[in-house]
Amino acid sequence: MNKIRVGIFGYGNLGKALEDLLAKDDRFELVAIFSRRAIKSKHKTPTEFCSRLNQYENKIDIMFLCGGSSSDLMPQAQECLKFFNCIDAFDTHAKIDEHIFACNQIAMNNNKVAFCSLGWDPGLFSLMRVLFNSFGYTTFCAWGKGVSQGHTEAIKCLSGVVDAVQYTIPNKSIIKKLKQSKLTTLANANDMHIRDCYVCANPIYHNQIKQSILTMPNYFEGYKTKVNFVSQSQIEKHKKMYHAGEVFCVGDEVNFKIKVDSNPHFTARILIAYAIVLNKFVAKQRFGAYSILDIPPKYLIENAKGLI
Amino acid sequence: MNKIRVGIFGYGNLGKALEDLLAKDDRFELVAIFSRRAIKSKHKTPTEFCSRLNQYENKIDIMFLCGGSSSDLMPQAQECLKFFNCIDAFDTHAKIDEHIFACNQIAMNNNKVAFCSLGWDPGLFSLMRVLFNSFGYTTFCAWGKGVSQGHTEAIKCLSGVVDAVQYTIPNKSIIKKLKQSKLTTLANANDMHIRDCYVCANPIYHNQIKQSILTMPNYFEGYKTKVNFVSQSQIEKHKKMYHAGEVFCVGDEVNFKIKVDSNPHFTARILIAYAIVLNKFVAKQRFGAYSILDIPPKYLIENAKGLI
Repeated sequence: MNKIRVGIFGYGNLGKALEDLLAKDDRFELVAIFSRRAIKSKHKTPTEFCSRLNQYENKIDIMFLCGGSSSDLMPQAQECLKFFNCIDAFDTHAKIDEHIFACNQIAMNNNKVAFCSLGWDPGLFSLMRVLFNSFGYTTFCAWGKGVSQGHTEAIKCLSGVVDAVQYTIPNKSIIKKLKQSKLTTLANANDMHIRDCYVCANPIYHNQIKQSILTMPNYFEGYKTKVNFVSQSQIEKHKKMYHAGEVFCVGDEVNFKIKVDSNPHFTARILIAYAIVLNKFVAKQRFGAYSILDIPPKYLIENAKGLI
Repeated sequence: MNKIRVGIFGYGNLGKALEDLLAKDDRFELVAIFSRRAIKSKHKTPTEFCSRLNQYENKIDIMFLCGGSSSDLMPQAQECLKFFNCIDAFDTHAKIDEHIFACNQIAMNNNKVAFCSLGWDPGLFSLMRVLFNSFGYTTFCAWGKGVSQGHTEAIKCLSGVVDAVQYTIPNKSIIKKLKQSKLTTLANANDMHIRDCYVCANPIYHNQIKQSILTMPNYFEGYKTKVNFVSQSQIEKHKKMYHAGEVFCVGDEVNFKIKVDSNPHFTARILIAYAIVLNKFVAKQRFGAYSILDIPPKYLIENAKGLI
């Protein structure tokens, strides 16, 4: 069987995790990693500047899009889809419809397939929410404690920020009450979490950065958010990649839970599984953009024996 | 919107649970319950003998098949599919392929849709196994402690048995070792569970029944199985409907867990959610037989807002 020729676009935590996993996965050939910056690959993968993208049109089957969701990923997807089939873990929930709609247009025009928002949330957790809701349960999600890549990235993009880490911390007492049916609704869904931010920046920008974080729509606005300014050496101690999360029901004990040492590696596992699916969609010429909800699960398997 | 006209075929625990839930669900009209015996419905639903099935050809859109998997459900599905779209929770894992194949032929010939094995296991757990496997994890399942409807039914069908209950009990120490990666494979997958059977029967049949249970393929053969003969009054105390189960990975903490007070009501919730999907398949004339793996999850929702 021919290997699937893939590229990585963006060499942050997710890009690096994908490189780690693809390096030991026979099903893929990692052709190149693309970045705006000059980068050095951990596994000696060829690296390229983004501007050279079009040179790879017939050399890469699927591009893993690993840019930040807050501002990079949407335009990058729209550019990459002209040349490659693409898969991403775009995680700005409020903009997913818009992202898929835009990708679908370009994918259709260029005979390409795009799989959008295929991480663990959105992605795997979206699937669980849909299932549990359809069974008639009131369903909630709790994230953390862990570092949110998306929220961390969103802070890092603010002008004046040198470095940042954002912990998402679940509100355990509220979650316990919901599970025990002592609470069945939340007046404010955001009450379930605390967002704890560690930011390194020149003190002259502190007030401005704090305001920008607290009022950032989709990411921090409406949440209980703490902003801690710390030194670069202190922030290094916070650079952990673990994360956790849970989708659970009120009433019956029905829940899906993850707790992983490396958030980007877990996301990379999901993207790789669905890249195999994407390749099957290409073979069937099912061009267009898809979310996890559009994909029949059977595409994830070669052989269902023992699974059904 | 027109209500979906449904029937229940078989009035055991699952049939009764479905009747409970359908009685308070506006989306459905429960037309009749079919049984081989004369039955009295809990919610005053009209009842009919199985022999009158063909009289309802144009009066019922979807039939919920609630016969026992060990011997009743396969032939019942093949008969019902001549007249109705059907959904079932057929749970003999080793025969699911055969069941779907047979249903598919009849469904195609009669312009009908069949959804097969849509309970929690097979069904929901099958979906989880497929997902976790595709992410590269070694995946295990544990069931219990709880009463297995399928195994209980299989014992009740044995000649000489007056009544029976089968508990599935997980082997906690093995499960703990697997989760902590102290074990990564099992020499015998059946070691993960103990099957504890309570049987009421005339003593002259005890030896014969015990042998039939211990050697029953697909159900008890190869498992650590205890057979306890008890009186009818003692067995009543065991007639609990709670059940539990878990699909989990070795290495990372990734797991899907359920613990429900009523196993049949939980299965009924899933069947009802997928009956809504089945109705959409009929509208699209997607005739044939399907498992949960064939169905794009988006069919479970009317509106994805807040779910993706």
